[in-house]
This record gives sequence, structure tokens and C-alpha cells, in this order.
Amino acid sequence: MSEFSLIYRHFANATNRHTSTVIGIGDDCAVSQIPANHQLVSCVDTLVAGRHFPIDSTPYAIGYKSVAVNLSDLASMGASPFAILLALSLPKSLACDEFVGSFAQGMADICTKFGVELIGGDSTQSDVLTITITALGTCQKQPIRRNGAMVGDMICVSGEIGSASLALKQCLAGQKSPWRHHLDYPMPQVALGQKLVGFANSMIDVSDGLGQDLQHILNASGVGAKLYLDKIPCMDALRQLDNDDKWQHMLNGGDDYQLCLTISPQNFEAFTKQYGRIIHPVGQIIAQQDLQLYHDGHLVDFAIHGWVHFDD
Amino acid sequence: MSEFSLIYRHFANATNRHTSTVIGIGDDCAVSQIPANHQLVSCVDTLVAGRHFPIDSTPYAIGYKSVAVNLSDLASMGASPFAILLALSLPKSLACDEFVGSFAQGMADICTKFGVELIGGDSTQSDVLTITITALGTCQKQPIRRNGAMVGDMICVSGEIGSASLALKQCLAGQKSPWRHHLDYPMPQVALGQKLVGFANSMIDVSDGLGQDLQHILNASGVGAKLYLDKIPCMDALRQLDNDDKWQHMLNGGDDYQLCLTISPQNFEAFTKQYGRIIHPVGQIIAQQDLQLYHDGHLVDFAIHGWVHFDD
Repeated sequence: MSEFSLIYRHFANATNRHTSTVIGIGDDCAVSQIPANHQLVSCVDTLVAGRHFPIDSTPYAIGYKSVAVNLSDLASMGASPFAILLALSLPKSLACDEFVGSFAQGMADICTKFGVELIGGDSTQSDVLTITITALGTCQKQPIRRNGAMVGDMICVSGEIGSASLALKQCLAGQKSPWRHHLDYPMPQVALGQKLVGFANSMIDVSDGLGQDLQHILNASGVGAKLYLDKIPCMDALRQLDNDDKWQHMLNGGDDYQLCLTISPQNFEAFTKQYGRIIHPVGQIIAQQDLQLYHDGHLVDFAIHGWVHFDD
Repeated sequence: MSEFSLIYRHFANATNRHTSTVIGIGDDCAVSQIPANHQLVSCVDTLVAGRHFPIDSTPYAIGYKSVAVNLSDLASMGASPFAILLALSLPKSLACDEFVGSFAQGMADICTKFGVELIGGDSTQSDVLTITITALGTCQKQPIRRNGAMVGDMICVSGEIGSASLALKQCLAGQKSPWRHHLDYPMPQVALGQKLVGFANSMIDVSDGLGQDLQHILNASGVGAKLYLDKIPCMDALRQLDNDDKWQHMLNGGDDYQLCLTISPQNFEAFTKQYGRIIHPVGQIIAQQDLQLYHDGHLVDFAIHGWVHFDD
């Protein structure tokens, strides 16, 4: 981490401290204390300029989103985040206080919001701005996996689906999107994810499109699903579109970072009784291993794909 | 990690399992059990094609070295590695079985050598081959930090210094280097690092040049050093060079991945009595906060820099 001084200078006073941190930034490694009876939960995600965020994104938004998408992975297991490590590959033109300062502030702000500490990192020069974040969290009880969906489970989502995809479409068309914040500042559902531990049977975060991400649960669990498209919550601007456009954003658009989960009807009752109606039923798990899409009671034919690398 | 299938296919049977792993590759996050009375030690390092390894490196060597440099960071704290996470940004031309298969085998072979499991990852497309590894380890006693050097400590290194730098120079000059394996296959000093816990007062791995890395210890500890250049172990091919050339490779060359440590004379005696002469005295810690270089008993003037980003 010897090359980290430019970043470190901007982070030294910007990131909050976490009680688990024994040694933070500045040595060869970080050292953390995992509380007794807890397990370590870890994940890594890379964002590449122009692929995972529009080129015109602000440095602040890039820093924010880089952390958000990783905390969302922890949220989808019901884990509690405590630290991140940052690997930053910077073009020479961005290795300046202006970019790095704003980028660091975006990271620091979301870290503060979720009580997460930046404990280590590495910076390198590269022709392509590439940000890799490793997020570390803990779980005390069984984490919620993808492979636990049971026949008869209700399928629920944690909020509106498709907003970021609509914003991206408008941005790529050169339009100023009123929904840009959905794309730049996704809100990882960390608190909700933790509440669902002990209630949900399976869970994933919606990063690559609801269709594809739900399919990951179905594949891992060896089950199928009926998905009721008219039940999927979405913002008014999306609801007013033609069905094909709307479904495209909701099912094949990425970057929602809402949770998609399956839960038994009994646990759904118990959960909503305890926490209110903060998860929204959109379908049910069936034994037949396919994904059936329904609209107004009728089976509809719509191709699920989602965002796939190496295909463009 | 939904984009990880190409990598996963090559790793599924290639990486060994670790007892700490509760959930490995295939879900949103990995879950690990940290043994009681142990702390988590974590670090991240990025390798960029053409900057951290020559463009003509084999995919196997790239995979191997990506892991090696991270295990070396764990070694320098005296930690015991158990897992890695991989973030791989691949140009489209390399997203093929031929490259990924060989790359994965290089990673798997060094993981097996050190009993480390690949527990998660992410793959993205990028114009520049970029590999970021997060290494996770544990330590039971106090890890060895950079900031513990004491006046009177002996400075020791774990082996020959400068070999990789000589190999790199030959490669960049278009020559076939007989020392290329030092550059491609550095050997992280994991077992030695662990042995030194309780003996050494400070430690770092030599990645950016012995001069610069020792200076990190001096800065962190608020001390200075006398370094005896004629005591630094190096291979014969290096010893035969002019002093300026030799010192350039030894002090300012990178990629050695030997350990540089400071240890009290009493502990040096005890350590060598227990383990043999496997660490080599090359200097001593002094109160005056500068780095003094000696050759044949005379102070010499030689500029320390080491490998710095954003300067080329």
C-alpha cells in the first residue's frame, strides 16, 4: 500500500472509525477483530469507467456508487458491513487532488452513512479508470443465500424496480434525466437485509436486472417462479411506458440495488406484522423449473437477458 | 459475482478448500469462520499489464504472481493466509478459455502451495488487463508492524535482493534473462513471517525496492538506519556488476518479495538458535532519522527512490 499516499491524504480525516479495526490504513495489511460468534462475510466488485457508470459521472458519484454496489452485496446476505478495501487504478490525468478529493468524499460519505471504515487499499496508474472495492461484513445467524427458495414461497422486492435503467437510457441518449440520482446514488438495503435474516429463505440484490437475478435464485434453488409483472413496484414515469419498454427496464435493466427475496407466506405475515409492509410481493415460487411472466392474469412472452459481460 | 462463470468454470476443480470457508464462490458473498482468538488480516493489491508484469508474461505467470504479491503482504505482518478474492478486468481478446484457463492454473497452483482458497470474485471487461486480489489471513498474536523498529535493532533481510530487478532490465532490453523466474515467480515468505512473530520488532516486504521499503519502516518508527551494502545478499550475477548498477538493482529495484525486518540482537540470537541462520543482518537502527549507506566501512552517496506511480 506504499503507493496509497495520494488517496490516504484525502481519506485520513474523511472516513469514520469502526470498533472492529485494530490496524487501519498505513501498514502492509489491515487487522480487524471479528466479534465472537460472528462470521466474516466478504465480496468484491469492480467498476470500470464507461461500463459501470457513464463517463460524465461526477467523481463524487463514482466514489459513492463504488461503495454502494458492494454494500448491496453484503445486504443481500443479511450481513452487517464494517470495512472496505479500495484498489484504485487511475489514468494519469485523474491523479490530481481535484478528482481524488471528490472521489474520496463520495466514498467517505456513504461509508459514514453505513458506519464503514476504509481500512486499506492500493493505487496504480492505468489507462482506464477502474475501481475495485472489497467489502467486509459480519453475520451472526445464518446468512440468506440464493439457494434456499422453497416451493410456495412468495417472491418479494424491496422497492421500485427499473428507475436506474430508465435514467441510463436517457443519459445515453444525451438527455438530462430527472432520475439520474437512481443511477448515481443507489441505496444499498443494508438494514432491511439484516431484518430479513430468519424470515427470508433466499435473497439476492438486483444488480443485473430483476429477471436475471431472480433466475440466479431459481437456478441455485432448483425451482421455478411465476412473476406478476403488474405487481412490480415502479415509479410513475415507468408505469406510463408501453409494456415492452417498461418490462425491458424492470426485467432486463440493471443497477436497481433493491433486494429480491423469497419468503414463506407465514413468515411474510410475521415480518409485515413486525416491520410493516416494507417488502412487496411480486410472484411465487413453483416446482416447475422455469420463469413464467404474467400480466393481468395472462402469461406473456418476454425475453429475459440482463446485462452480460463480453457480449458487446 | 454473476459475471464470474467463465472464471468459476476454470477454478471449480482447481482450487483447494480451506476449513475456514463456510460459503465459497457462487453466492453474493463468501462467508468465512475466523478461529477463536484470531484476528482478520486483509490487504489488496492490483497488477496492471505492462506496469506490474511484462506484456510477454505467460498467463500462468500472471495468475501466479497476482496471488504471490498479496500473500507477501500477509507474510510481512506474520499472518497466516486462508483465502483470496479475485477481481479480474479482461480485454475481450483475453476472455477465452486459453488465457483464463492458464491464468487460473497459475493462481490455483500458488493457492494450493499455501493452502489458500479462492472464495469469491468478479470479472469485468476492460481495455486493460487488470488483476486485483484481496488476500485474507489471520494472526493470533500481535502482527509485526512497520512502526516497531527500536534503536539498536539489527536490520535483516530474508534472502537475495535485486534479482527480479536485474531480470526486468534484461527483459526490457529485449534479452532472454536467465533470472526471469525471479520476476515471474516470487516466493512469498509466509512461513518465515510467521516464525518471526514474537521475535521481530518491525517488518515489511520488499516490493518497491529495499531502500524505499526500509525507509517506510524508518518513517513509521521515527528512527534512522545504517545499511551495509556489502552485507546485502545477492546472486553472483549481481555481485559482479559495478557498484552503481548493483546498488540500483538492490536498493531501487522492485519485486523481490523478500522480508526486511528489524530485531533486537538478543532476539536475533534466540531466533537463529531456534531456526538457523535464515535471516541475514544488513544494518542497524539508529536514532538519527536518516538512512546512511555504507560500503566497505565508508559512507557512500547513492540516491534512493524506488518505484513510484504517476511519475513515468
